[in-house]
Amino acid sequence: MNQEIKLRNVKVNDAFWSEKQRLITDVVIPYQEAILNDEIENVEKSHAFANFRIAAGLEEGEFYGMVFQDSDVAKWLEGVAYSLVVKPDGELEKRADAVIDVIEKAQQPDGYLNTYFTLKEPEHRWQNLHECHELYCAGHMMEAAAAYYEATGKDKLLRVMERMADHIAGQFGPDKKSGIPGHQEIELGLMKLYHATGNEKYSDLAQYFIDERGKNPDYFREETEKRGWTHFGLDPSDTKYNQSFAPVREQKTAEGHSVRAVYMYTAMADIAGKTGEPELLQACETLWDNMTQKRMYVTGGIGSTVDGEAFSIDYDLPNDTVYAETCAAIGLVFFARKMLDIHPSGKYADVMERALYNGVLSGMQLDGKRFFYVNPLEVEPEISGKLHGYKHVLPERPGWYSCACCPPNVVRLLMSLGKYAWSSSEDTIYSHLYLGGSASFTQAVIDVESSYPWEGRVSYTVKPVREEQHFVLAVRIPSYAKECRILLNGEEWRNTVTEDGYVYLPRSWQTGDKVEVTFSMPVRKIYCNTAVRENEGCVALMRGPFVYCFEGVDNGGRLQELRIPENAEFTHSVMDTEPLKGMTAVEFDGIRVHSREELYSEEKPAQEKVRMKAIPYFAWGNRGKNQMKVWMLEK
Amino acid sequence: MNQEIKLRNVKVNDAFWSEKQRLITDVVIPYQEAILNDEIENVEKSHAFANFRIAAGLEEGEFYGMVFQDSDVAKWLEGVAYSLVVKPDGELEKRADAVIDVIEKAQQPDGYLNTYFTLKEPEHRWQNLHECHELYCAGHMMEAAAAYYEATGKDKLLRVMERMADHIAGQFGPDKKSGIPGHQEIELGLMKLYHATGNEKYSDLAQYFIDERGKNPDYFREETEKRGWTHFGLDPSDTKYNQSFAPVREQKTAEGHSVRAVYMYTAMADIAGKTGEPELLQACETLWDNMTQKRMYVTGGIGSTVDGEAFSIDYDLPNDTVYAETCAAIGLVFFARKMLDIHPSGKYADVMERALYNGVLSGMQLDGKRFFYVNPLEVEPEISGKLHGYKHVLPERPGWYSCACCPPNVVRLLMSLGKYAWSSSEDTIYSHLYLGGSASFTQAVIDVESSYPWEGRVSYTVKPVREEQHFVLAVRIPSYAKECRILLNGEEWRNTVTEDGYVYLPRSWQTGDKVEVTFSMPVRKIYCNTAVRENEGCVALMRGPFVYCFEGVDNGGRLQELRIPENAEFTHSVMDTEPLKGMTAVEFDGIRVHSREELYSEEKPAQEKVRMKAIPYFAWGNRGKNQMKVWMLEK
Repeated sequence: MNQEIKLRNVKVNDAFWSEKQRLITDVVIPYQEAILNDEIENVEKSHAFANFRIAAGLEEGEFYGMVFQDSDVAKWLEGVAYSLVVKPDGELEKRADAVIDVIEKAQQPDGYLNTYFTLKEPEHRWQNLHECHELYCAGHMMEAAAAYYEATGKDKLLRVMERMADHIAGQFGPDKKSGIPGHQEIELGLMKLYHATGNEKYSDLAQYFIDERGKNPDYFREETEKRGWTHFGLDPSDTKYNQSFAPVREQKTAEGHSVRAVYMYTAMADIAGKTGEPELLQACETLWDNMTQKRMYVTGGIGSTVDGEAFSIDYDLPNDTVYAETCAAIGLVFFARKMLDIHPSGKYADVMERALYNGVLSGMQLDGKRFFYVNPLEVEPEISGKLHGYKHVLPERPGWYSCACCPPNVVRLLMSLGKYAWSSSEDTIYSHLYLGGSASFTQAVIDVESSYPWEGRVSYTVKPVREEQHFVLAVRIPSYAKECRILLNGEEWRNTVTEDGYVYLPRSWQTGDKVEVTFSMPVRKIYCNTAVRENEGCVALMRGPFVYCFEGVDNGGRLQELRIPENAEFTHSVMDTEPLKGMTAVEFDGIRVHSREELYSEEKPAQEKVRMKAIPYFAWGNRGKNQMKVWMLEK
Repeated sequence: MNQEIKLRNVKVNDAFWSEKQRLITDVVIPYQEAILNDEIENVEKSHAFANFRIAAGLEEGEFYGMVFQDSDVAKWLEGVAYSLVVKPDGELEKRADAVIDVIEKAQQPDGYLNTYFTLKEPEHRWQNLHECHELYCAGHMMEAAAAYYEATGKDKLLRVMERMADHIAGQFGPDKKSGIPGHQEIELGLMKLYHATGNEKYSDLAQYFIDERGKNPDYFREETEKRGWTHFGLDPSDTKYNQSFAPVREQKTAEGHSVRAVYMYTAMADIAGKTGEPELLQACETLWDNMTQKRMYVTGGIGSTVDGEAFSIDYDLPNDTVYAETCAAIGLVFFARKMLDIHPSGKYADVMERALYNGVLSGMQLDGKRFFYVNPLEVEPEISGKLHGYKHVLPERPGWYSCACCPPNVVRLLMSLGKYAWSSSEDTIYSHLYLGGSASFTQAVIDVESSYPWEGRVSYTVKPVREEQHFVLAVRIPSYAKECRILLNGEEWRNTVTEDGYVYLPRSWQTGDKVEVTFSMPVRKIYCNTAVRENEGCVALMRGPFVYCFEGVDNGGRLQELRIPENAEFTHSVMDTEPLKGMTAVEFDGIRVHSREELYSEEKPAQEKVRMKAIPYFAWGNRGKNQMKVWMLEK
């Protein structure tokens, strides 16, 4: 079991990622704060800070918002915590402290914390786990508390959430009444409390919720009947939706609401990593394999259908009616990261990278101001967002304020990226993501210069804590990197051992030792399993970690008429105009077929040679509304 | 303007169609009668005959059923009328007469006829044209009345419906209150009354409803507001749904509910044929061209979306989420037939044939006992009928009793097929469909022996009313028939004139003159316009009028893995096992590609040669639940 790195031990100085982090510190977090404070006009009213002030008795008024409105504050605080590590900001920290003071005052004498129930329905506490997100909100606030503690050393929120956790433990458990959350998240929060405090009471409670889930598939139906009222009118008999259809250890396929699913799998992996329980680990591996080998888009997106924002069935991966929520791809990164801690394997790191560079990043406009919920692999502006079945698939990112859940999720992932880039065990330091900057471990400080993701060239300069310090540097090599060269101080490092996607470099390190990793990044043609109906005869292009896509603006109309020749010769070049400046485009001589006017004809459509251009998928939709397509017919 | 042939002047003796007609007379009509009489157990209660008996004061009870329940009786009677011509049946006629007696008694003193409003809401008559189908039911009963009069010479129902028409004319018109039907059909019924009686009062009223439509696009909204109650809660602001968004002469694209649309277009063509009004005819042509050149499936199916059972936009023709209701394809046949009367052109006849042999016939199980509403061009049993977006696309025909509208529509079309096969003008007899049997005209009786649709071989033996009777025999030649031979009494008929899809054969005819028309029927590869995203890189196979499809049962699983080679050599042979016995299958050496286990791989899927087999599309779904696909990738 590997150790997570503390965020303060990572400095990010990366040509690709630093810019994203700057966008978030400078644009996204302040904007979100203003929204939570109801300072932005013409956006949906939040009232989330106000709810806490009212519950704290500091202000008169009524609760306003969704039953899970508190979670917006929690997610903002978690993002702020990571942000304070990346870019210290005394004013921001003061404001966050003030928010935490209010939260503490809103906590009830018995430890209970939830402004909706405190202000609106105190008599209904803990009666509607199915719909009412009390545990969900608590989980997010626990994550925020652990993050804020790690970032600032301040434990006020941590103590608040420990009291809340104690309160929850007084309600639910083996010797209390049984309960499971309608939307998994409390398990993640409790595990974060455990990791922050070392108190196994919290990991035990997390495991209780995991173990209890699906033991009684009728749980939510019985809860609904007993209670006699509903909040949303959610169907309690849809047990797949919230993964309560079977005990988690018996679940073999990724089912239901995809965000709920990956949050749960992440907690399962976290617990399995702690306990070493083979059955739970096996369930994680089975679900991982089903999800990533039968139900995942090439972009790392998951969730094939808008109906329940859910997984559907094996190999059902429609490109234009897809869901692939940004939050779900983020949850997949969480899950992958936890699996990596148990077993550093390229199969987890490759998927983590795939989701991060494609299905997660596509969620955010390049200017940081707009966000996608749904990340399609094909859009047609006359259809997507307009026609029945396609209304959820928007051809442009809407203003980020209208989707409250994805932006803060992008924030917390990208601002804590260091944790995904590194981990360590007693004798090994793992580099998972080639993140430029530096990272400090007990054995050494390692400086990284990275040309990734645009080029396969990374160097690690090692400063061991003492000369001749022995440890293993394990560097992930992507499965696509066929010929990888490792240099030590300019000389080829021979006899390296590559196992399961990582090259292991043992050495007694000298100050200034420099490891250079280089691999070529040809454009790759990716074929899809022929069990998938939608991608038959097609290829998707990838280069490095990036999936590429074709947009109308680069290729004229009717992208469906374009063909990638079997023997296409790809060239790639760095684009020099905004907003895609600095990104690598792929170009080649392709084919356009076009028919005459008739709808149906015996005449084969004519062909012409055309220059085709593809751009990284995550950057699509930044140049106005136009057609987009990832999978293209090969000819 | 050509004359419609009276059904009693056509005798059908056709290897293909007679069997279908026998199915209908022997299976479908009696079954439907039993249902309307509530004699069948385990099907949805009809009560349709009972509603009339109660309204007639012959029985105690309450109305039961939909607001348009009366139309089931009307459609049954219309089918019975045609059936009595094809296969006289004294007992059936007696029972139909008895039903008509009841209908007459159910008519109110002021001519009003509608059991729902008479029994349930007499105070609400004519207040909710938007939802309540009063005019729709009247239209169907007028069609039944005209058909029964034509078939039997009995005019009791005709008189009933003339009184109803007079009643309607007393309600709506230029100098009365304005009104348009929510579901077009009254226009067709009134035109049938006009054709049966010659009374222009009815064609004038039909034209009134056509002219009035869309003049005030707010009509239904205003009606709804004024009335202050709703029946279904249908949205009156959706003016595309019922084609009230613009005056009909200004409509350029086929919009909204596809059955409503083609019923309206049929009435427009009928009226334009009568009045010769260029603007109305132009509108018909514009709508025809838009619909058949941009919004029609290769099967003649129309309606791309389940949302409103409607047209969507140009070139949006998804194969697996399609609607393509059987009734809509039938309505397309109606429209084509009326256009042919105005201008005999292959463009109408080809589409009429396309819809008839494919999108209409596919609606009925080969045993006549089950029916499709929705006629997909691709099904995958694990998805179709199950997953969100595909729930309306059933992989097998449900028991016909559960869909009350399509079976009687198939009945009335197929039992009156003679009217679609023939027409005449003063000096020309038109053969549109190669229907085997005979047809009597003022100039001659013509016997037809037809190998169509399986082979392109038809002979016409002419018995002129007197020797040397001069007239033109005009025989439609399908646009796909590239080399057509015409023999007269065994000798090549040279210098024939083929114009607009018809070969014109002028002659002073002798008794026994025999015209033989032969053309080859190679398997044709059909390409789709490249504006259609769904069929890119694909071909559909046709032979004669039939579209072919591939079913899992003939080709193993995963039809999407199959490819039709560019140079495929097709063979065709007659199948000899039920239920497809006697049909021509197409076989060839094709290609199957199949990937390894990975979801995504850089390895191109392997290929193998496989024997592929296609069957006529209309016969799909008769051998159990399996995959089906019309459009196949070409390689």
